[in-house]
Amino acid sequence: MSEHAAASRLRLSGLCFLLQILLILLFALLVRYSPEGSPGPCPPQLNCSRRSPDSAFQQPRIQDVHVQVLLSFGLLVAFLSRYGPGSAAISILITAFSIQWAVLIQGLLYFFLNGKIYVGARSMVSADLCTAAVLISTGAVLGRVNPVQMLLLALLEVTLCTLNEYILLTLMGVSDSGGSLTIHTFGAYFGLMVSRVLYQPHKDRRKREEQQDKGHQMDVLAVVGTIYLWIFWPSFTSTTTAHHSAENWAVLNTYFSLVASTMSTFVLSPLLYEEGTPRMVQIQDATLAGLAMMGMAGEMLLTPFGALIAGFLVGLISSLGFRFFTPVLHSRLKVQDTCGVHNTHGLPGVLGALLGTLLTLLATADTFGYRLELVFPLVAQGSRTVTDQAFIQLSALPLTLLLATLGGCFTG
Amino acid sequence: MSEHAAASRLRLSGLCFLLQILLILLFALLVRYSPEGSPGPCPPQLNCSRRSPDSAFQQPRIQDVHVQVLLSFGLLVAFLSRYGPGSAAISILITAFSIQWAVLIQGLLYFFLNGKIYVGARSMVSADLCTAAVLISTGAVLGRVNPVQMLLLALLEVTLCTLNEYILLTLMGVSDSGGSLTIHTFGAYFGLMVSRVLYQPHKDRRKREEQQDKGHQMDVLAVVGTIYLWIFWPSFTSTTTAHHSAENWAVLNTYFSLVASTMSTFVLSPLLYEEGTPRMVQIQDATLAGLAMMGMAGEMLLTPFGALIAGFLVGLISSLGFRFFTPVLHSRLKVQDTCGVHNTHGLPGVLGALLGTLLTLLATADTFGYRLELVFPLVAQGSRTVTDQAFIQLSALPLTLLLATLGGCFTG
Amino acid sequence: MSEHAAASRLRLSGLCFLLQILLILLFALLVRYSPEGSPGPCPPQLNCSRRSPDSAFQQPRIQDVHVQVLLSFGLLVAFLSRYGPGSAAISILITAFSIQWAVLIQGLLYFFLNGKIYVGARSMVSADLCTAAVLISTGAVLGRVNPVQMLLLALLEVTLCTLNEYILLTLMGVSDSGGSLTIHTFGAYFGLMVSRVLYQPHKDRRKREEQQDKGHQMDVLAVVGTIYLWIFWPSFTSTTTAHHSAENWAVLNTYFSLVASTMSTFVLSPLLYEEGTPRMVQIQDATLAGLAMMGMAGEMLLTPFGALIAGFLVGLISSLGFRFFTPVLHSRLKVQDTCGVHNTHGLPGVLGALLGTLLTLLATADTFGYRLELVFPLVAQGSRTVTDQAFIQLSALPLTLLLATLGGCFTG
Repeated sequence: MSEHAAASRLRLSGLCFLLQILLILLFALLVRYSPEGSPGPCPPQLNCSRRSPDSAFQQPRIQDVHVQVLLSFGLLVAFLSRYGPGSAAISILITAFSIQWAVLIQGLLYFFLNGKIYVGARSMVSADLCTAAVLISTGAVLGRVNPVQMLLLALLEVTLCTLNEYILLTLMGVSDSGGSLTIHTFGAYFGLMVSRVLYQPHKDRRKREEQQDKGHQMDVLAVVGTIYLWIFWPSFTSTTTAHHSAENWAVLNTYFSLVASTMSTFVLSPLLYEEGTPRMVQIQDATLAGLAMMGMAGEMLLTPFGALIAGFLVGLISSLGFRFFTPVLHSRLKVQDTCGVHNTHGLPGVLGALLGTLLTLLATADTFGYRLELVFPLVAQGSRTVTDQAFIQLSALPLTLLLATLGGCFTG
Repeated sequence: MSEHAAASRLRLSGLCFLLQILLILLFALLVRYSPEGSPGPCPPQLNCSRRSPDSAFQQPRIQDVHVQVLLSFGLLVAFLSRYGPGSAAISILITAFSIQWAVLIQGLLYFFLNGKIYVGARSMVSADLCTAAVLISTGAVLGRVNPVQMLLLALLEVTLCTLNEYILLTLMGVSDSGGSLTIHTFGAYFGLMVSRVLYQPHKDRRKREEQQDKGHQMDVLAVVGTIYLWIFWPSFTSTTTAHHSAENWAVLNTYFSLVASTMSTFVLSPLLYEEGTPRMVQIQDATLAGLAMMGMAGEMLLTPFGALIAGFLVGLISSLGFRFFTPVLHSRLKVQDTCGVHNTHGLPGVLGALLGTLLTLLATADTFGYRLELVFPLVAQGSRTVTDQAFIQLSALPLTLLLATLGGCFTG
Repeated sequence: MSEHAAASRLRLSGLCFLLQILLILLFALLVRYSPEGSPGPCPPQLNCSRRSPDSAFQQPRIQDVHVQVLLSFGLLVAFLSRYGPGSAAISILITAFSIQWAVLIQGLLYFFLNGKIYVGARSMVSADLCTAAVLISTGAVLGRVNPVQMLLLALLEVTLCTLNEYILLTLMGVSDSGGSLTIHTFGAYFGLMVSRVLYQPHKDRRKREEQQDKGHQMDVLAVVGTIYLWIFWPSFTSTTTAHHSAENWAVLNTYFSLVASTMSTFVLSPLLYEEGTPRMVQIQDATLAGLAMMGMAGEMLLTPFGALIAGFLVGLISSLGFRFFTPVLHSRLKVQDTCGVHNTHGLPGVLGALLGTLLTLLATADTFGYRLELVFPLVAQGSRTVTDQAFIQLSALPLTLLLATLGGCFTG
């Protein structure tokens, strides 16, 4: 047993070494900084193409990009703290590797020019987005997969996630600024499929008991984690939207959704768990669900009460999901979900995509005004009808599910 | 007993559900986003009216508003972490409810137009300010009030706090950018009065013993909480000041006050408690006192040493208050103060208001230069003398105390 | 013993009181705010002189300065959380004192005009930089020095550190934007020399055992601390660089170095410690090493893979240093290093300076383009050759070591 452990340690160490050397070689061969101070070419999920070309806007924009990198890293580390101090080390390893790998893979698709990838602050932000999806998947298989397998999972998922993003955003022109589909749904179902393939009946229980033991410590981390999410996520959503005023709405919608889904935890938790007040972990999960919901619809919603309703409902559904759906998932479908990824990311992501489709159907030039051009540029240009756009938004959902499921099976 | 607990759980759940449905209905009826990208109308505590009307200033301003929302939420969550993981869930519930309610109530007073409330990022910031006052009151009654009572307290306090703000800032033209009076003093004395009315001799001791038990965990949270306050508060103060340069001074004054009040903890703590070094909770309290002190005076102080002296003195007074005044408060006045709200918010807020009055008296066009117009617009326009302004600043103090006390009694 | 403890408590209390009164008097005598909204004169480590004089740049700059103060305080408190809750109180005392003292001392060298020191947000930032050096030194002697001695150490080190900075940056024209030399190397070797002089064989072991006990709590704090550093440090580096585009590169280089040094922890840790995954404290140390490495070279490196290689190597060296060099340091050189300051700051700082020298040698107008003027203004103006600049960069290293060592001896 001890020899086996030693061998597995050496395998991890060797793999890290090989991967890092490989990354350095590939970076040396391919990656350069964007030639001048210009922010460089722009990946579609950051919507740069839609930006107003006024020179007056350029000056503050460069500033913004730094803030974006700052915020997106803040988000990543907020995720890290979710899985307890024991798993944090693994999560950081996954993060450190995924960021480098995502810069490479996304660079090949978006920033490739004359045989070189030109990176800038923006490629860092979009690499972060991809890493967030990987961390979500990680949450589903945590405790049942060793670090070496985790690294291979990250290797494959970054590739597939980038591919999915490329198809959805560039080829199909789907509007998904906050990543309801590309991050939350993809990450959750990818992780769940891996978990399904690697089904082992015994390990899950042990893990959960361990978590029970260090309950108090988890609480402290959950408080800190929830705080980070409240601070960083709404601003993060805004980094990917096109324009100042759309940003404004996306941020406010996200805040409203977040407070409403928090309220819903307090409504259901006393009914479901026989506790006076919900535990911090449940509040954190509801917060995440409220945030995932607003991913696609954040910049489309036109009224604050819409965000309140959406957040309230998704909070209820997510809480009910934990109580009734997770056991079914476990016993019937043989999917283990260590951190409840399905209820905090998967389901809200799907609901967010459906809500986004609905809102797209309702979008008219009257209600949106000049914002139509910002949120749905193709519709505003007349090359697409609203129904087409809604159909495309909707069809992006099964496509993402398919890619995530197949990818997860294959990886598992 | 168990049945009673079940009933109280159901009551909380039902109340949350009803309140949230009510809020959604009111929002659906009344609240809309501000029509275009413009930041919309402006509440008086954000001082927009005093802003330079240059179009050059408009462009970066919209950016600022997002940063303001980010910071003020950072502040809120910094408050949350003060009361330990057990109470954090309740505090989050109060926050989630108060923000929505404050957006509504403040909207009726400030943003009401043609039967609709037009909200934007700024209404979010001023709702946060109000929520901070509610959280301060919460600190005074923590552990002796059940969540249902807490929610009712929040319901009433948001209403009264907005009313107080409206009278002070809009009707009387008081200058109180950092909320020495409107947030700290109001919140503290409101909470203390509620605590007085609900006086129960037995419960306080038990609560304190519980806190003693989980001392180490509290320390970790106190470190994290102090860190958040150091990072976010001074910038938060600056969000409410009028102009770039006044902002500059308010931030620096706050930092100087903060370091000086921290030093004073180290001066007194060895004398009062027979410990080598103060505990983190004491440092956090002194930090808060230094911050509350600078609420009104922050943008008026003209010299760094003034901020140092003020911070040092308020740090000393707050420490002495904990040692000698809190027991008197408890035994004579029958007011229990779970988290020492009087010494960290109440007293420093009153002192800050007195200091602000003194500084107003000393304000002349010579010493303030062009800043006079920013800090005291009415004086600069000649419609008020400095003495009038000082008198008004001073009279705002008993008015706030009166409203807070009556409100607290009534709520209790 | 009890009498002795009481006396030492009183000594600390009295010293804090005296120092604070002295500071208030000196501030009252010397320090004033910069007269108008202009950011005021500029210390050399902030490189203002190199800023483009376009008026278009002035407007957003004032905004930036606030963000700088915010970030640098974020950094400071990230440092605070490194030493566990027990030592955090002392660290905060040191911080509160050092900031005030550094504003004074640096003001005398940089902002002195007509018998007054004119302070602004920028002097706050450069005071923070100096305080970071003091906190690094503190890490080396933690647990073996009482608070009174700590305060005296801070008093002397701030003075010497400012002197070193003045010689390097103003007199010699060294380019060291992230403080590889002025902060990390100076702070580490100063602390180590103090530790050498105060060598006491027994105390170190006890301290380490205490740390072992509260292992789990340390882990929570290490997670939080690592998170703060990932969020704040790269942006912090950017506050001191000259220009938007150089900033861009410095931030990205720092991120790449950080992820690579994290990976290297996972390579070596299984080999050295027989544990499957490294503990969070090790990851935090590697993170710091990667950051210290990029201090000088951050704005000079032209390719991402350079940053990856540098970060990877420094991570390996730092891990090896912990395993093999710290025991040698302890047994042979009689230097105790409580928090491993040598491996996280000293060695990486020296390596960073060597790398910076190398990169300076390779700098040509061809490869740097217009950025040459930003990073090496004297070279671009033709008053220095590249070789001269490289020689000067190199000679700054022994000078810093000499000053730090002598200063440490004297202080001890």
